[in-house]
Amino acid sequence: MINKLVSNIRRTKAPIVVGLDPMLSYIPEHVQKKAFAEFGETLEGAAEAVWQFNKEIVDKTYDLIPAVKPQIAMYEQFGIPGLEAFKKTVDYCKSKGLVVIGDIKRGDIGSTSAAYAVGHIGRVQVGSKSYVPFDEDFVTVNPYLGSDGINPFIDVCRQENKGLFILVKTSNPSSGEFQDRMVDGRPLYEIVGEKVAEWGESHMGDEYSYVGAVVGATYPEMGKVLRKVMPKSFILVPGYGAQGGKGADLVHYFNEDGLGAIVNSSRGIIAAYKQEAYAGFGAENYGDASRAAVEAMVLDINSALENR
Amino acid sequence: MINKLVSNIRRTKAPIVVGLDPMLSYIPEHVQKKAFAEFGETLEGAAEAVWQFNKEIVDKTYDLIPAVKPQIAMYEQFGIPGLEAFKKTVDYCKSKGLVVIGDIKRGDIGSTSAAYAVGHIGRVQVGSKSYVPFDEDFVTVNPYLGSDGINPFIDVCRQENKGLFILVKTSNPSSGEFQDRMVDGRPLYEIVGEKVAEWGESHMGDEYSYVGAVVGATYPEMGKVLRKVMPKSFILVPGYGAQGGKGADLVHYFNEDGLGAIVNSSRGIIAAYKQEAYAGFGAENYGDASRAAVEAMVLDINSALENR
Repeated sequence: MINKLVSNIRRTKAPIVVGLDPMLSYIPEHVQKKAFAEFGETLEGAAEAVWQFNKEIVDKTYDLIPAVKPQIAMYEQFGIPGLEAFKKTVDYCKSKGLVVIGDIKRGDIGSTSAAYAVGHIGRVQVGSKSYVPFDEDFVTVNPYLGSDGINPFIDVCRQENKGLFILVKTSNPSSGEFQDRMVDGRPLYEIVGEKVAEWGESHMGDEYSYVGAVVGATYPEMGKVLRKVMPKSFILVPGYGAQGGKGADLVHYFNEDGLGAIVNSSRGIIAAYKQEAYAGFGAENYGDASRAAVEAMVLDINSALENR
Repeated sequence: MINKLVSNIRRTKAPIVVGLDPMLSYIPEHVQKKAFAEFGETLEGAAEAVWQFNKEIVDKTYDLIPAVKPQIAMYEQFGIPGLEAFKKTVDYCKSKGLVVIGDIKRGDIGSTSAAYAVGHIGRVQVGSKSYVPFDEDFVTVNPYLGSDGINPFIDVCRQENKGLFILVKTSNPSSGEFQDRMVDGRPLYEIVGEKVAEWGESHMGDEYSYVGAVVGATYPEMGKVLRKVMPKSFILVPGYGAQGGKGADLVHYFNEDGLGAIVNSSRGIIAAYKQEAYAGFGAENYGDASRAAVEAMVLDINSALENR
């Protein structure tokens, strides 16, 4: 799957991922109204609005991008119907050739981690049959519990050719409370990064490991260090756009081959129609606004990479 | 909800929680067969087996225990039908007067953490209506992302009188890889524990905080220290029984008032019928075996507390 991600990035020349994190407040009123007319103001109605919103954005951007990253919390908040919309979104994006990164940030130990892994990127056994419940291509995982939490995921990745992005340094302001604490003269995130590199060695694709890392766009100096600590790990970079990261800040997240990082934007793309720059499209044409925002983001990052 | 947990513990004189973590391999063949006969060897069949298994254990133990802790991964692995069984289990346990601790170990930032919080312990707004999607009483949360990840959960807890248990020191062998790293002469878990105490001050019940901590039974010396670091936080203690913890190891997790900790056992209770000690019950009577295992666990812990 890491090989597919690399080949999708090469084909589209776009080292980006669109975060499908649809808050109801991002969804244009006409989409919500239509869904509520059919299902009422119910969890099913919310889930339908989310799904229709996603579908339009995917239809308008899939040829430009290598991957999407649905944030499961935004679906899980609507209970079972929300999770059905998550599954529908995953399946639809895969049918369009996109790599799907399930942003689930799960993390537990032993058989419990294994259960999350089979549920999201593997297959679960039921008697003599097996099923692929959610079937993302990659998932994000929290490292706080150590190797006991990560290894069961890696075992499933190896069987299924799937991959992981492990949280190393997150993009939020308070990420330093624990992640930046100094351990033997080095910040904790560096130590986590070293473990990611070590875990990654056990499951390599052609050029990069199936085990990647999450490093926020908002900490470019740390990204520079972590790039060197994990040379064979893809870095998933949240925090571009709405959270403040810019293309020029991100060049050091990439290797010399122009690969090794994939930059996420969620609100900046999916709610582009709400920004001044794209307001001309109007809420009716929110998908076209998203397409224009994707083009601008790709240009910003590629220009920065060319001028480095 | 922390007040209800305390009052349930006082009533039952049982500072324990039963972990409803049903792997299919724990479920007696006759229960699986019946479910598969109705739904086939499908995700729905697996979910039905899980639900029927849980129901019997709850029916046979609910009068002895204050709380249950369903581990959502064990349901999520069966996709949407599995999550429906999770929801059914939560609702059923609440109807029996039990406090339900959703072991979800979620953790994200800002609006994403808020989405998990409303989905699991709060209510989500859809147009003019609001819904309680999963409706647990407490959830477990991962602290790696810092206050930005925890505060949105606390906000929802305050509105809904719900509570949290935040991972501090987990029970698994590799938990030390990051949690034990020394920061300014103290292990990271102590620093996380201090933050839990600080977060907890902002949301107090009558005697204890709504913000508790997870500290594994397998590290009693650390439990002793953390008890002092977080005097007003309930400690949820996994790792009893199958993972090696014993009642005598756990006395220092409790305060002088005999409260302040709640010890979880999962496999040791729900798969008791598979242990030599309870084999006499037979697989048909697995619920009675679980009841006997609960009684033995309560006796073990209470004896240790009386003899300290």
